[in-house]
Amino acid sequence: QLKKFSTSKLISQQKRSVLDQINNFPDRHVGPENIEITDMCKAIGVDSLDSLVQKALPPNILLKKPTNLGKSFSEVETLERLKNIAKGNKVMRSYIGMGYNGTITPPVILRNIMESPSWYTQYTPYQPEISQGRLESLINFQTMICDLTGLPIANASLLDEGTAAGEAMLLCYNTNPKKNVFFVDAECHPQTISCVQTRAQGFGIDVVVANHKDFDFSKYEDKVMGVLIQYPSTYGSIEDYEVFVKNVHSKGALVACATDLMALTLLKPPGDFGADIAFGNSQRFGVPLGYGGPHAAFFAVRDEHKRRMPGRLIGVSKDATGKPAYRLSLQTREQHIRREKATSNICTAQALLANMSAMYAVYHGAEGIKEIATRINSFTAVLASYLKNLGLKIKNEYFFDTLTVELPYSAKSLISAAENAGINLRFVDEFTVGVTLDETVNKEDLQDLIEIFCNGEIHKSYKQTARRSLNTSLSDFDSLATIQNGNTFPDSLKRTSTYLTHPVFNTYHSETEMLRYIVELQNKDLSLTNAMIPLGSCTMKLNATTEMIPVTWPEFSSIHPFAPAHQAKGYQILFDELSYALEQATGFEGMSLQPNSGAQGEYAGLRVIKAYLDSIGQHQRNICLIPVSAHGTNPASATMSGLKVVTVKCLPDGNLDLADFEAKAKLHKDNLAATMITYPSTFGVFEAGIVRACEIIHENGGQVYMDGANLNAQLGLCNPAEIGADVCHLNLHKTFCIPHGGGGPGMGPIGVKAHLEPFLPSHPVVPMGGKNAIGPVSAAPWGSASILPISWAYLKLMGNNINFRIITQILGDDGLRKATQVALLNANYLMKKLEPHYEILYKNENGYCAHEFIIDIRPFQSGGIEVIDVAKRLHDYGFHSPTMSFPVVGTLMIEPTESESKQELDRFVDAMISIKQEILQVTEGKVDKKNNLLKNSPHPVHQLLTEKWDKPYTREQAAYPLSYLRKKKFWPSVSR
Amino acid sequence: QLKKFSTSKLISQQKRSVLDQINNFPDRHVGPENIEITDMCKAIGVDSLDSLVQKALPPNILLKKPTNLGKSFSEVETLERLKNIAKGNKVMRSYIGMGYNGTITPPVILRNIMESPSWYTQYTPYQPEISQGRLESLINFQTMICDLTGLPIANASLLDEGTAAGEAMLLCYNTNPKKNVFFVDAECHPQTISCVQTRAQGFGIDVVVANHKDFDFSKYEDKVMGVLIQYPSTYGSIEDYEVFVKNVHSKGALVACATDLMALTLLKPPGDFGADIAFGNSQRFGVPLGYGGPHAAFFAVRDEHKRRMPGRLIGVSKDATGKPAYRLSLQTREQHIRREKATSNICTAQALLANMSAMYAVYHGAEGIKEIATRINSFTAVLASYLKNLGLKIKNEYFFDTLTVELPYSAKSLISAAENAGINLRFVDEFTVGVTLDETVNKEDLQDLIEIFCNGEIHKSYKQTARRSLNTSLSDFDSLATIQNGNTFPDSLKRTSTYLTHPVFNTYHSETEMLRYIVELQNKDLSLTNAMIPLGSCTMKLNATTEMIPVTWPEFSSIHPFAPAHQAKGYQILFDELSYALEQATGFEGMSLQPNSGAQGEYAGLRVIKAYLDSIGQHQRNICLIPVSAHGTNPASATMSGLKVVTVKCLPDGNLDLADFEAKAKLHKDNLAATMITYPSTFGVFEAGIVRACEIIHENGGQVYMDGANLNAQLGLCNPAEIGADVCHLNLHKTFCIPHGGGGPGMGPIGVKAHLEPFLPSHPVVPMGGKNAIGPVSAAPWGSASILPISWAYLKLMGNNINFRIITQILGDDGLRKATQVALLNANYLMKKLEPHYEILYKNENGYCAHEFIIDIRPFQSGGIEVIDVAKRLHDYGFHSPTMSFPVVGTLMIEPTESESKQELDRFVDAMISIKQEILQVTEGKVDKKNNLLKNSPHPVHQLLTEKWDKPYTREQAAYPLSYLRKKKFWPSVSR
Ligand SMILES: Cc1ncc(COP(=O)(O)O)c(C=O)c1O
Ligand SMILES: Cc1ncc(COP(=O)(O)O)c(C=O)c1O
Ligand SMILES: O=C([O-])O
Repeated sequence: QLKKFSTSKLISQQKRSVLDQINNFPDRHVGPENIEITDMCKAIGVDSLDSLVQKALPPNILLKKPTNLGKSFSEVETLERLKNIAKGNKVMRSYIGMGYNGTITPPVILRNIMESPSWYTQYTPYQPEISQGRLESLINFQTMICDLTGLPIANASLLDEGTAAGEAMLLCYNTNPKKNVFFVDAECHPQTISCVQTRAQGFGIDVVVANHKDFDFSKYEDKVMGVLIQYPSTYGSIEDYEVFVKNVHSKGALVACATDLMALTLLKPPGDFGADIAFGNSQRFGVPLGYGGPHAAFFAVRDEHKRRMPGRLIGVSKDATGKPAYRLSLQTREQHIRREKATSNICTAQALLANMSAMYAVYHGAEGIKEIATRINSFTAVLASYLKNLGLKIKNEYFFDTLTVELPYSAKSLISAAENAGINLRFVDEFTVGVTLDETVNKEDLQDLIEIFCNGEIHKSYKQTARRSLNTSLSDFDSLATIQNGNTFPDSLKRTSTYLTHPVFNTYHSETEMLRYIVELQNKDLSLTNAMIPLGSCTMKLNATTEMIPVTWPEFSSIHPFAPAHQAKGYQILFDELSYALEQATGFEGMSLQPNSGAQGEYAGLRVIKAYLDSIGQHQRNICLIPVSAHGTNPASATMSGLKVVTVKCLPDGNLDLADFEAKAKLHKDNLAATMITYPSTFGVFEAGIVRACEIIHENGGQVYMDGANLNAQLGLCNPAEIGADVCHLNLHKTFCIPHGGGGPGMGPIGVKAHLEPFLPSHPVVPMGGKNAIGPVSAAPWGSASILPISWAYLKLMGNNINFRIITQILGDDGLRKATQVALLNANYLMKKLEPHYEILYKNENGYCAHEFIIDIRPFQSGGIEVIDVAKRLHDYGFHSPTMSFPVVGTLMIEPTESESKQELDRFVDAMISIKQEILQVTEGKVDKKNNLLKNSPHPVHQLLTEKWDKPYTREQAAYPLSYLRKKKFWPSVSR
Repeated sequence: QLKKFSTSKLISQQKRSVLDQINNFPDRHVGPENIEITDMCKAIGVDSLDSLVQKALPPNILLKKPTNLGKSFSEVETLERLKNIAKGNKVMRSYIGMGYNGTITPPVILRNIMESPSWYTQYTPYQPEISQGRLESLINFQTMICDLTGLPIANASLLDEGTAAGEAMLLCYNTNPKKNVFFVDAECHPQTISCVQTRAQGFGIDVVVANHKDFDFSKYEDKVMGVLIQYPSTYGSIEDYEVFVKNVHSKGALVACATDLMALTLLKPPGDFGADIAFGNSQRFGVPLGYGGPHAAFFAVRDEHKRRMPGRLIGVSKDATGKPAYRLSLQTREQHIRREKATSNICTAQALLANMSAMYAVYHGAEGIKEIATRINSFTAVLASYLKNLGLKIKNEYFFDTLTVELPYSAKSLISAAENAGINLRFVDEFTVGVTLDETVNKEDLQDLIEIFCNGEIHKSYKQTARRSLNTSLSDFDSLATIQNGNTFPDSLKRTSTYLTHPVFNTYHSETEMLRYIVELQNKDLSLTNAMIPLGSCTMKLNATTEMIPVTWPEFSSIHPFAPAHQAKGYQILFDELSYALEQATGFEGMSLQPNSGAQGEYAGLRVIKAYLDSIGQHQRNICLIPVSAHGTNPASATMSGLKVVTVKCLPDGNLDLADFEAKAKLHKDNLAATMITYPSTFGVFEAGIVRACEIIHENGGQVYMDGANLNAQLGLCNPAEIGADVCHLNLHKTFCIPHGGGGPGMGPIGVKAHLEPFLPSHPVVPMGGKNAIGPVSAAPWGSASILPISWAYLKLMGNNINFRIITQILGDDGLRKATQVALLNANYLMKKLEPHYEILYKNENGYCAHEFIIDIRPFQSGGIEVIDVAKRLHDYGFHSPTMSFPVVGTLMIEPTESESKQELDRFVDAMISIKQEILQVTEGKVDKKNNLLKNSPHPVHQLLTEKWDKPYTREQAAYPLSYLRKKKFWPSVSR
């Protein structure tokens, strides 16, 4: 049974020996020390962690089959094992292209952003006052995208190019909601086309794939709402789309253009030839390949489309003191506002990677990037010239970095000869290969590449003559490059407009300046390196260094997603073992690692349910029951999957209104497809009714989708499969320690019961998925593969652990179980400490919460205090605010996670109690209702130092309401 | 000629091609962009960098033979080549011991201190207001050392255990200056004994090595001033020294005890049995082996010896506002005060490594470390028991982690059998091996180890029977461990006192808390990640990420310094190539990489000179001419080398008083040994007289020692060898990019002319050095070997570069040359900008300075302003202050280095001009002389926020005297 998690040793039943490896990782991962745990248990009225479990969880859900992850590994062992797994991956020179390119991550960015906890442990910048650093960086990203695409508005960011294409289609659709045909040029990347096709299904959109020159508008009357083209195309060709775009517009349709940032430094930008939307992958701006991700996709539009743009947009405004301040301005998060009318469910995106690519542009500047692009283009020109000399036909007349080469011999044999030389080429068809060059290529690489074309396992007689006529000396390359220079596409397609002219792209070109810029921004941002981030539903727990280290090993970070499977054996082992471990942790029988965010998981899971229902002849089932308390992504995902959302009530005690639930299930029983339930609920309670709720759905022919955002409360205590879920997504960036990166990356794999396994997603390039697989939901086969070692390592470190100083009762899953227990303990401890001061919205019948709880700020409303006042005042106390007004307006949802120490929890309690006193001053009318510590919060230091101090409280009261702040103070950098 | 720097390709004379690798590293390394360089040249009245060189350097020193480093590599190529070199090192399991042990660096410390520029780019904490973080950490180090050694005072830190032993001897000597015999126990580490012997020579101390039980005091009458013992001994034995120490004390001598921190967690500490001094290596507390370093040595003494303790000591006091503040309290830096009477020359130490080991203790706490120590000890007990069962004799009855094993067969054959199994044992003698275990050992390692003793290339018949009687199952180990537990030394030697009871060692045991503690401290400290650190003579330039990355690769970091040479072939290549490149850069013919600081280099160089003079029959030569302007380490090093210092005057224009110099050289011509000259001088000027000065010395039979601290002004323009120096040390932690680590590590290799090569230092364990070698000056053969990749990479990146956008005239050494030119440019630019506002102390006859310059603050003294006021006020402007009062009291010495950008220089100029206005307010009597912006500076934020503001200026004037500070402000954390 353990064979799939092959690194596991069987549980030793022995007592701990002094000689055993000291694996204290679980004790490092959880905040409180064991002696404190005992005290904290006492403080909340239980005598042990196990009794807390009995009080917090309904008995009917407690784990039946223990989670068995095998013996835990120490940190050293974990890294050793991962190194061994990594060795199974072969790093080759990749010329496969298709939207993924070799790149050089500037070391200063690698070490100080990608490998820096100050950056990777940030949350999405919902609180601008303590997030100005990454907001500035994301603005830089947007500016870069606008400049390069020639379009005025860009977001920051989308998940990948494939889903960005889906979003582009939806933007066209929402603009022309009466039309439902979408033309897609056949020379788009295959994974882009497939993602669009998957996405189209839920909306009943017809996707017509053809060469754009053959698009026949007349055939679809007035039904075409948009077209998708790719520039340069997947085969490298560059078309002049000017006339084509005019034609499309004249038909009342929009033009979406997939494109490449590097090419755009030399090519006329899509905005200039009239495209409405431009999108693509920013990976080649310094973000490692990572076997497919994580990378940030970009998305830019003309001004008139900005309100329909998906995802997050950063804007500039002024704070209360008149200082310029960045904020999430068009954070449509439309799913929050439009709920079931939303057509995009994107939430977590790729902030960290967007920051990296923006920093790449900041560091190189326009000139530097243009130099890189020119070099790539020149290499391609030289290669083209050699290949032509060899008598080979280059299918694309114009090119930037990609050649599609027709061969007089078998493509497969050429590709395998190349592989023997450590080179990957793209297989196009029996007699065609693709070659895409990138900034890592040097002259020796080019020599090797040319060798491949005239040597190796190819047409023998041909080879002899070809070889003789070739001269591949380095200086020949140079002279050829000079001759070819700039002649790879016509002048009419050359870029004339400037880009990256903003000072930020022209100031930080020395490593010293770059480093200081990175640190200057980072110091404005509150991350887990500074304090607890008690965001309910976000699970901001420890992202341990040991888990993070392998991510940037070249064996994981430098593999092309479409490299032959046998070159990525290490990854295959990692996927298998991680899937096994996640199945153990959740009780499921199948797992798909493709979805690269929680919302993507929801979408994938619902599509799988729909495919299953279709397969058993239940096509008509299209109703999805969703409680009012659900996260906004749930209804959006349902809608995107072609389901109709029916909202279910909750009771005043926070539990699901089972009566309403059952009534609606019965009412729709012929059409019931699914329910989406978060468990424990977004109200922070383990409700006993969950099992019954699942039964009701099943009784009425539906499937249960569990939103796994709150899985951190379940591991080792209960699991979704036993509870009754058919599918569940796991936010690896919450429960399984992938850091949040300031708003991404994330991973949202789905676990499914056996009957759903055949429907798990496929991929058009890499064979995978179930027998009856749905189409791909992400561009890359395994989503953001390179961050999966993080979760693998966490599960390995937290396996069964015989070394704990406190041995819990139940054998198996000790590490995970302890983490979950402490997550409950920390939440309940905070709740009990805050209870005398704030109303707790929901508890279970024993008076306990799960891993998070909600405090009500509405009682102070009449006295003049809003929830935002408390949230912002918390910044003055050095804390990130809890989740505001979700799931209930006017409340704060607090989730400390297991990783917070008792001292940090106590500090938070002190802050909240002190704030309560400040609130009472206002509500009791002792201080001005409009001008007080809360309303004016947060207080950045420049404001406190202004000469004229006209506030009715002192500067010290504003800055140091509690004495710990004099020792350690985090300063907000702007005010509200 | 290039063969030694084997990675170099020959210089291509071609013009740059678009296809060439884009090696813009030199442009990343220097601050100003090329277009700014042109402007800056104009601003200082020259038309190019080359004309600046003509103005700043006397023509008689300009480079004759160009530096040839071969073609420069890009960052990617550099890392690839280093990876290949690294592969030549084989990481084995090392049980060699001898003061170096395997250890597990907690990943959170590895990534966030050792690999974090916020920590490694700090300078020595001379400015406590902006250094409270590392001062606190170094206090933690001192506390840890005091606790574990049982002595009340400890410093932070010394360079290595061997030189710490030398310092211990000198402390004994200084306490009893009339006695000159020092007893050394024969069971000290061999490198310790050798270092002591080398050090003794300069003072005429007699070192007597014998078993401590055989020390015959009567034989040396009243001559014995101290004894040195090691506890546990190099062979692992543990003695009860109580009676012995009483006896030594009764003879009026002191006891110095080399010891081991890990063992002390279980053993009675040296303070408890009466030792006066305890010292050792803190490496095994989480600091990688690094083939010998860098590691921090510790040094602790009884209270009565504290004024004689060498090195830096941190203390706690209160700042002006009454807030507790750490400072360098007993920073004896005795060489500054006592000059030629100083007997210790330590300056740069090992702050970064001291911080790491202190953090290891903070993270593990007393219990955690004791658990680790107990496990090591138990493993050793189990091993002992097996070996005894095998019929082998363990020579040491009592032990902690080391067994000395007598063999019935050849030690060499056992050692080579072990090596085949990937294991290194210590060779003791023909029939004896040593085995030292550490925290990395696990049960499988123990199995392998036992296998070695009964298998392999050993006595065959013996093996058969032995093997049969053995059972090495893991559970046998466990039961044996239980039986042996605590029986490896007598109760009387067991530790009874507590340690690490301070809260700091009991608070940060979760990774989250640890990370936050590290970040909390780091945020208090101004490092190069925040701003320019314009410390004259310290060369705080870029420490590029590419240079830093290889340091923590296991192939460099996990090799024992006494591993067989054939296991460290990569290191040998690195040493050869680096030596070659340094020789190229300096013009010398020989290089020793042993000295691990600049001061150590001085000492080594002078000892080499002395050995040379002795070798030509000039024993009597013992006079060393040193200009008044010399750094304090110079006279100290001379004294330590047995030389008599004769001070030479300087002229009012800052130049050496050549007349005085010649007169003194002639006066002492029969006894003249050497001169020590810093060039360009510490006054910041290239003086033409240097060549003549060297001639004078040579004419009078002496040798020229050049202090290479200012080599950053020379590279690629001139070199010490051509100028006339016979020896020169190179501060790799200045000119060659090793970061300063908050006060170390450093490396101070010496370059020598051919006639001195035979005298380069040897090592007692690893054969090395010249034919007539002096003894070792450091404990490890190649000093702090693991940081040498930094300088290697720098030289490789800065080699001849055909890719520069601006091609300089002279071929060869483009990168280095440009760096030096820009170092001159930046200094002259600053000087010219400040000249209208401050008096510049010294310039050359053309009005130019070298890479640094001195501004005079004394003119404001009568008006009430001291140099410290300006220094501290600079903190309010976000800058580290320049070097204060060296080499001239009442002045600031400013060295911007080439890595600072024009914008940073301009910011500094603005700050200094603004401060000048503030000064004038005081000196012109417009504001109070005692209570003003300067006298009260720096202004920490808590002070500015106090309610009662009674200063005669506003808070904003204090905090934001210039507008850039509102955008980016670094806050001092305490006041003066
Ligand atoms: C309850 C819940 N469901 C779903 C999601 C969506 O996950 P993601 O942001 O990874 O798309 C979230 C995210 O924050 C959530 O809190
Ligand atoms: C002129 C001069 N000489 C020698 C030294 C000593 O070098 P180290 O500190 O590496 O021992 C210094 C150090 O700062 C110096 O400035
Ligand atoms: O530390 C110095 O003395 O430069």
